[in-house]
Amino acid sequence: MKIDLRSDTVTKPSTDMLEAMMQAQVGDDVFREDETMNILEKRIADMFGKEQALFFPSGTMANQTAIKLHTNPGEQVICDKYAHIYNYESGGASFNSGVSCKLIDGDRGMFTADQVVEAINPDAYYYAKTSLVEVENTTNKGGGACWDYQELLKIKEVCNTHNFGFHLDGARLWHALVAKNETPKQYGDVFDTISVCLSKGLGCPVGSVLVGDADIMKEALRVRKIFGGNMRQVGYLAAAGLHALDNNINRLAEDHKKAKELGEALGKLSAVKSVEAIETNIVIFELHADVDENAFLNKLEENNIHIIGMGGGKLRMVTHLDYTNSMHEKVLECLQTF
Amino acid sequence: MKIDLRSDTVTKPSTDMLEAMMQAQVGDDVFREDETMNILEKRIADMFGKEQALFFPSGTMANQTAIKLHTNPGEQVICDKYAHIYNYESGGASFNSGVSCKLIDGDRGMFTADQVVEAINPDAYYYAKTSLVEVENTTNKGGGACWDYQELLKIKEVCNTHNFGFHLDGARLWHALVAKNETPKQYGDVFDTISVCLSKGLGCPVGSVLVGDADIMKEALRVRKIFGGNMRQVGYLAAAGLHALDNNINRLAEDHKKAKELGEALGKLSAVKSVEAIETNIVIFELHADVDENAFLNKLEENNIHIIGMGGGKLRMVTHLDYTNSMHEKVLECLQTF
Amino acid sequence: MKIDLRSDTVTKPSTDMLEAMMQAQVGDDVFREDETMNILEKRIADMFGKEQALFFPSGTMANQTAIKLHTNPGEQVICDKYAHIYNYESGGASFNSGVSCKLIDGDRGMFTADQVVEAINPDAYYYAKTSLVEVENTTNKGGGACWDYQELLKIKEVCNTHNFGFHLDGARLWHALVAKNETPKQYGDVFDTISVCLSKGLGCPVGSVLVGDADIMKEALRVRKIFGGNMRQVGYLAAAGLHALDNNINRLAEDHKKAKELGEALGKLSAVKSVEAIETNIVIFELHADVDENAFLNKLEENNIHIIGMGGGKLRMVTHLDYTNSMHEKVLECLQTF
Amino acid sequence: MKIDLRSDTVTKPSTDMLEAMMQAQVGDDVFREDETMNILEKRIADMFGKEQALFFPSGTMANQTAIKLHTNPGEQVICDKYAHIYNYESGGASFNSGVSCKLIDGDRGMFTADQVVEAINPDAYYYAKTSLVEVENTTNKGGGACWDYQELLKIKEVCNTHNFGFHLDGARLWHALVAKNETPKQYGDVFDTISVCLSKGLGCPVGSVLVGDADIMKEALRVRKIFGGNMRQVGYLAAAGLHALDNNINRLAEDHKKAKELGEALGKLSAVKSVEAIETNIVIFELHADVDENAFLNKLEENNIHIIGMGGGKLRMVTHLDYTNSMHEKVLECLQTF
Repeated sequence: MKIDLRSDTVTKPSTDMLEAMMQAQVGDDVFREDETMNILEKRIADMFGKEQALFFPSGTMANQTAIKLHTNPGEQVICDKYAHIYNYESGGASFNSGVSCKLIDGDRGMFTADQVVEAINPDAYYYAKTSLVEVENTTNKGGGACWDYQELLKIKEVCNTHNFGFHLDGARLWHALVAKNETPKQYGDVFDTISVCLSKGLGCPVGSVLVGDADIMKEALRVRKIFGGNMRQVGYLAAAGLHALDNNINRLAEDHKKAKELGEALGKLSAVKSVEAIETNIVIFELHADVDENAFLNKLEENNIHIIGMGGGKLRMVTHLDYTNSMHEKVLECLQTF
Repeated sequence: MKIDLRSDTVTKPSTDMLEAMMQAQVGDDVFREDETMNILEKRIADMFGKEQALFFPSGTMANQTAIKLHTNPGEQVICDKYAHIYNYESGGASFNSGVSCKLIDGDRGMFTADQVVEAINPDAYYYAKTSLVEVENTTNKGGGACWDYQELLKIKEVCNTHNFGFHLDGARLWHALVAKNETPKQYGDVFDTISVCLSKGLGCPVGSVLVGDADIMKEALRVRKIFGGNMRQVGYLAAAGLHALDNNINRLAEDHKKAKELGEALGKLSAVKSVEAIETNIVIFELHADVDENAFLNKLEENNIHIIGMGGGKLRMVTHLDYTNSMHEKVLECLQTF
Repeated sequence: MKIDLRSDTVTKPSTDMLEAMMQAQVGDDVFREDETMNILEKRIADMFGKEQALFFPSGTMANQTAIKLHTNPGEQVICDKYAHIYNYESGGASFNSGVSCKLIDGDRGMFTADQVVEAINPDAYYYAKTSLVEVENTTNKGGGACWDYQELLKIKEVCNTHNFGFHLDGARLWHALVAKNETPKQYGDVFDTISVCLSKGLGCPVGSVLVGDADIMKEALRVRKIFGGNMRQVGYLAAAGLHALDNNINRLAEDHKKAKELGEALGKLSAVKSVEAIETNIVIFELHADVDENAFLNKLEENNIHIIGMGGGKLRMVTHLDYTNSMHEKVLECLQTF
Repeated sequence: MKIDLRSDTVTKPSTDMLEAMMQAQVGDDVFREDETMNILEKRIADMFGKEQALFFPSGTMANQTAIKLHTNPGEQVICDKYAHIYNYESGGASFNSGVSCKLIDGDRGMFTADQVVEAINPDAYYYAKTSLVEVENTTNKGGGACWDYQELLKIKEVCNTHNFGFHLDGARLWHALVAKNETPKQYGDVFDTISVCLSKGLGCPVGSVLVGDADIMKEALRVRKIFGGNMRQVGYLAAAGLHALDNNINRLAEDHKKAKELGEALGKLSAVKSVEAIETNIVIFELHADVDENAFLNKLEENNIHIIGMGGGKLRMVTHLDYTNSMHEKVLECLQTF
């Protein structure tokens, strides 16, 4: 039994989800005639109190589209130094939109309204023009940390004052909603656009969704086409999404509980220097300088437990739908032998 | 019973294909761990005698990636004035790759090696640098016409002489192979990159595949990521592709036969001025100037027959997997009443 | 005595112009503190009835900036197949602005409002969005032909209806104004932006100027900086411009007269098949198929007369400020010996 | 008598330089026929031991061209957080080349080879590909600091190992050469491309020059055209450059001496918290937190002394060719009254 804690992207559809996919009514989504997709998009738009939603083959494309919608070439995006859009999207913000990032040195991927104000370029023609603030919730590289909603409201005010767009990379927003007992509408109120992922925590095989109001989403459809993200009979993927919305959100609390238990177990190991605070389903920890990282990883792999390094001596475990109770017990047992 | 002749993109998976999809072994393709996808990509690469293949969510993304692989910003692509990449990809060649098109005034979407030579810009720094020749087979806007393979060999020589890339948009290449009794390897021999579609004629719900040799395809993986075309558990879509390769290629001859029969029937109508030569599954015809196009289309729709206009007074019918024998009979009967 | 009829760009400042340059008050134009430049920009803006003008190191940069100001990446510019922006700016429209051109098959570089309407893409997300119409007056590749002002008014109406920008590449607009007895304000009324050249006919060493209203020109300053077109003590170049505006516009009629006389002389030669209609200072003519073009050019060069080929068997002569009466007599004499 | 210490870009040509300019032999540089420019470019190429040089209207365009020459869209440039290309070129690196910057947190704008190694992205397709290292010498925002040549050699090794381009923004390289008694050839040995400024310290009205070997400079000519940096009779500007190379390099030592004396005087003021180490012609200093910056600036202006703020409580003075001995005495006297 392989225990895969590398990422929550490795989940496979359950039998029930697969059954739902198989029953889906489909059509040609390029003509906007896929009924199941239309239902999914409507439902997610409504959840966030936005006028429209659009399905994307990946969270990267949903984010890249949002960046394009809010910027013109040469402009600048304010985001955290840990931001997925800066670090893990292959330089796409510059390739696709011709923009640069002004990185804030935040705390676990999160920053304050004051830091945003400091990061705004002066209004002179030889500076890049600031036009977008981007936030990630939960933060991936920040160890699944959740933003303080009040701080987001303050940042929104800064955006309003300066006429900046405000985009949320909500790849793991569901986790924050569950962990902090918040609602999608609260986020729809604050952000102009939000991308949410149906894969990862929700367990779908493919897809992210971008929400926003009608004027900006009309352009989103065009940008998706330019990138080549228009697909045909996508109802199968939409059906998985609908199933996940019904069944896989509240259960994220279980993943969070397991993550905390993993963190506690790791914290007791002599090899482990520190474990970052755990708020959701990501556990980031550091080994002591004299511990051989490869030996540590190898020992886990001998026990069929797979995790990944984050660079800089940090290791990561991510809990998810396919990480079962019995796997969890086995991992906890195994860690006691370290 | 709705009879949809608007496009061959409207097909839905058969029960057998759906069964194959649901049985698929899947994994996280971002980690390149989806077994079924790996099998599909290997199989298609082998068919064309190329080293690698890569799956894309759409033919547009496969083409846009190919254009990027062969060009640098500011350069120029030689293609036909009917080319899909110029006409129907939202200006993506300029958006994504910063290139322009030099359009050849070809014959039904096809041109000669001599016309390519004429279209090459002089080697001076104030001209856009020509770097790619692009061909579409069969030609969509050219009514499903098939290229003369010998002419392609001549164009390949021009490309070799000038060090141009040579890309084939093979969205409907399967049709040409069947109609002209050619093999994928013949095309793999001539082109640096080829995109083929698993949707359209082959009846899959989603996907196109780009083939090429290892060096260029390594970059293709990066470009796909930049566009956001990386998906997770895509084995379901790959399984549909494998099923289609096994079952849906040879049967394209039936679609071609039906298209020819439709063309003959149309040719007899007093309302119809002319029908373009029919080689595969696309029928393009023109009404007499005094015939009301809308009335013509409405009468078809009253009979549940749906087709689309191409602009400029041209109408199009496309036969496909879901256009059954009984539908065909009904359409032929209906046309006799026009 | 070298007689250079290759282009009107080869002129050198007269002693008077040089004297004016030498007396110029200069300052750092990056801080907008160059007095002479400020005077020049104000004067040209006023001539065209526009709020602002901005100096550029070249007409190419003025045009490329205008294209950027009117478009977003992926959009499409309607222009003639002869347009300088498509043919002779190194693919810059796609490189700098990510846009493509929809080429009209016009008459000597000019087209009609009806042709513009036909060239507009349908409003669907898979077409490039049309957003700019560009016109060149006089037309370079069209042999110095002058647009019909009434047709420009009609095209303006089309632009208004569709919310398109309307840009004039006026590299040789001064010629049209003189030849047709029109005023700069007439053109300022019709176009959103106009680039005019101080080199070429006006005889300055360097520079073009873009005019427009304040909102768009604020962005022009930023785009010029992005391209690197901001220069420091540019007053020397501005002084040349002021001198040229005072002295070198009306005299263009002499260049036009000489061009007509060259055309008549060429028309009588047995080697010459045809001479295009001559409206301003450009003479385009074609040799008979059996005449050796190189021999023809060589014979001219033996007489110290330099002209250039346009490709496709066409040759070009351009009259200008430094093409003196005595040179003109010598050329006419020489042609009689052909 | 206005004393302008805001920047060394405010210098105006001396009478001798102006005389040299007006004597220049000129021609159409678009045809590469401007003799004086050809001489200047050849001379600067030779100075640096490179095969070719190319004149640009600005240092920004020379740098932007270099970035384009060394990168493809989506790639990443390693540079200091103070880099001019990141901070003061209007976001041009992303606009023009589609690249992002990986900023090193260096010391006064300078970094080590080890820091470069740390900044290289892993070789995986979801990271931006690192392809260029950029260095500025002297550093503008770093207060005119000069790089350690031995460290540059080490960075060059890193570039060689990873096949990165290595570009020097030498806007004020002349200052470093004089201050450290180094030669242009030493820099030509280390860097693939170098931009040097003829304005600023050298006192020319306009222009920068990019040097490199023939293959890369052939492309530079094309990129310059794409940006619109091709000018016509530029010999006037070239003549200024030749005059400056003959007369204005060694004298930079005087500017450095004056800067040091200004620094000493500032260091004695009770209002001044600290003065950064002064190596060349830039003086950066900080006021105590309780000193009113505007009052300080106003008092200087009342004495006709103009300097600028750098943001973050820092002020800057720059000495230059037009900052005469008598001005210097006046400033030193004035400072004693603070």
